[in-house]
Amino acid sequence: MVARIGRDAMMDELIERLGRAIGGYDLSASQVPARSGVAYEKPEWGLLEWMPAHFQGEGTTVKLVGYHPGNPVLRGMPSVISTICVFDTSSGHLLGIVDGTFLTALRTGAASAVASRILAKAESRVLGVIGCGAQSVTQIQALSRGFQFERVLAYDVDLASARSLGERIGFTGIPVDVYEREGLGEMLAACDILCTCTSCAPGEGPVFEEFENREHLHINAVGSDFHDKFEVPVSMLRRAVVCADFPEQAMWEGESQQLEASEVGPSLRTLVQESGDHDGLRDQLTVFDSTGWALEDHVTAMMAMEYAREMGLGREAAFECVSPDPKDPYSFLGAARETVGKTGVSAVS
Amino acid sequence: MVARIGRDAMMDELIERLGRAIGGYDLSASQVPARSGVAYEKPEWGLLEWMPAHFQGEGTTVKLVGYHPGNPVLRGMPSVISTICVFDTSSGHLLGIVDGTFLTALRTGAASAVASRILAKAESRVLGVIGCGAQSVTQIQALSRGFQFERVLAYDVDLASARSLGERIGFTGIPVDVYEREGLGEMLAACDILCTCTSCAPGEGPVFEEFENREHLHINAVGSDFHDKFEVPVSMLRRAVVCADFPEQAMWEGESQQLEASEVGPSLRTLVQESGDHDGLRDQLTVFDSTGWALEDHVTAMMAMEYAREMGLGREAAFECVSPDPKDPYSFLGAARETVGKTGVSAVS
Repeated sequence: MVARIGRDAMMDELIERLGRAIGGYDLSASQVPARSGVAYEKPEWGLLEWMPAHFQGEGTTVKLVGYHPGNPVLRGMPSVISTICVFDTSSGHLLGIVDGTFLTALRTGAASAVASRILAKAESRVLGVIGCGAQSVTQIQALSRGFQFERVLAYDVDLASARSLGERIGFTGIPVDVYEREGLGEMLAACDILCTCTSCAPGEGPVFEEFENREHLHINAVGSDFHDKFEVPVSMLRRAVVCADFPEQAMWEGESQQLEASEVGPSLRTLVQESGDHDGLRDQLTVFDSTGWALEDHVTAMMAMEYAREMGLGREAAFECVSPDPKDPYSFLGAARETVGKTGVSAVS
Repeated sequence: MVARIGRDAMMDELIERLGRAIGGYDLSASQVPARSGVAYEKPEWGLLEWMPAHFQGEGTTVKLVGYHPGNPVLRGMPSVISTICVFDTSSGHLLGIVDGTFLTALRTGAASAVASRILAKAESRVLGVIGCGAQSVTQIQALSRGFQFERVLAYDVDLASARSLGERIGFTGIPVDVYEREGLGEMLAACDILCTCTSCAPGEGPVFEEFENREHLHINAVGSDFHDKFEVPVSMLRRAVVCADFPEQAMWEGESQQLEASEVGPSLRTLVQESGDHDGLRDQLTVFDSTGWALEDHVTAMMAMEYAREMGLGREAAFECVSPDPKDPYSFLGAARETVGKTGVSAVS
């Protein structure tokens, strides 16, 4: 799918759809419960979460997400793996299942792009990145669709990660300067926009110290997604306008968990929907507190399912045992007609 | 699958596995959060729920359940449709997806069988059923595996449903006597065991009035699964020993919602795990408050996946986009090796 559409065309399409969906987001016709999940310490530390979202007339999606930080080293698998289930709201039929692993990286990038277009200076030329894993690739890509960056400045506790970033984002054409620990302060002072997308452990943040930032610095804080896990020093949050994708969730597991509710600024929805001029925000320190909003997954899954249908990708699988006689669970035995509901399943690669 | 194993052999196997799983259920190595969901009134009244269960060393399952009472009439589909996703707890990989629609009917029957073997008199000969839809079939079947019933007495607000029950449970060999509204009191007075499995609307219960029951009557109350939805008169609950599958959930959406916490008896887990003699309970009025416990779905999904593997049923589908380079979400493009995780998918029919 991605190869045929083109990665930038797909990202551009998603940024536009996401902006439109947030702009039209109607609280009274939607239900997006905060995600919840089970966390466990055996056999290894891990987390499985469900992120549901219901949009009247449009369907219900549930993203099922595993977060297992041992995956890259132990299994050569990404730490975050997910699938998105899309339901028909009239009947409860499972319409489709699509990959959520790649799509999550895509939508997290697109969300930062939507926020940064409102909160960052249009003339931003220097993009800093702390944490150079999978998320950093789509952060840089998504932001590069709306800003003319001259350089990416990269830092990772794993120097090899920072060093390989240039190759991974080669398709954006932006050169990468790699920084080591002792140069981090210098790097941060040079940023117009900063993305933090680390997998620091709960209790170990922040991932950098307070510094003298460029006055208009905008930070996309992407890594925080768990209670006690955060990346940005609270002193910087206090002097910034902090805008969360999903404030109720961010107060529990985003950067905003370090703040009182009264210290948190307008939500992304408010920013997108209010028609006023945002220049005031662009000139000051701002933080997009991105914890991952199920609305984003919904928009992304719908887009991927549309593409899959248009292109004839994916296939149909049979899960639901729909007996010919709804009052007889055994009526599928020896039945002539189709006894299972068809679900479209698709990876996006 | 069912045709090859045989419906009674499959039910017997499940009853045994479920009894064992409840007997070995270790609170400290499990997490079974109460289900939650989204309910909506447009385009029609409906509900989508997720039921997660985590068992250390055994995996995590999430059942996704739609409840859309308009389905049978409007679409010829069951009101309850579901699928069960099974995850590897080490990596978060989606191991398999199986039908949950048929399996839910199966496990709800099996749960009543486990409870009734403890709470009902072994000599029970007359089984009453209020609500003659899909669930009644597996209730009757499951109970008939442990009791020698001479007759099933059937009542449904839809007389046609009650009249067709005999044919649907023909395979059990038990004759069915159909009762109409005016005979309901007589029917109830004759029951040794009663199953209520209606889809009465929230606020419209109970589905029968207080009556002079046989002293040892045991009720399996199966239909209650929503706040304000219940089937048994509170006055009968108060003079019964009420045992819930999952008390925390039952206090919100089971028969137990009509009671104070102090009025609710031992849980199914306590009953199964305590080694004492249950004869005292068998001689008095008891109610199994069955709201549906994710443990039951877990055991059932694991059994179905085992059968599917043994029999070579189902197939593998690709959802998860697992890039060769975990740090590069686009590395699947042009990659030589497999870029998607394989998930076993199977209907059970």
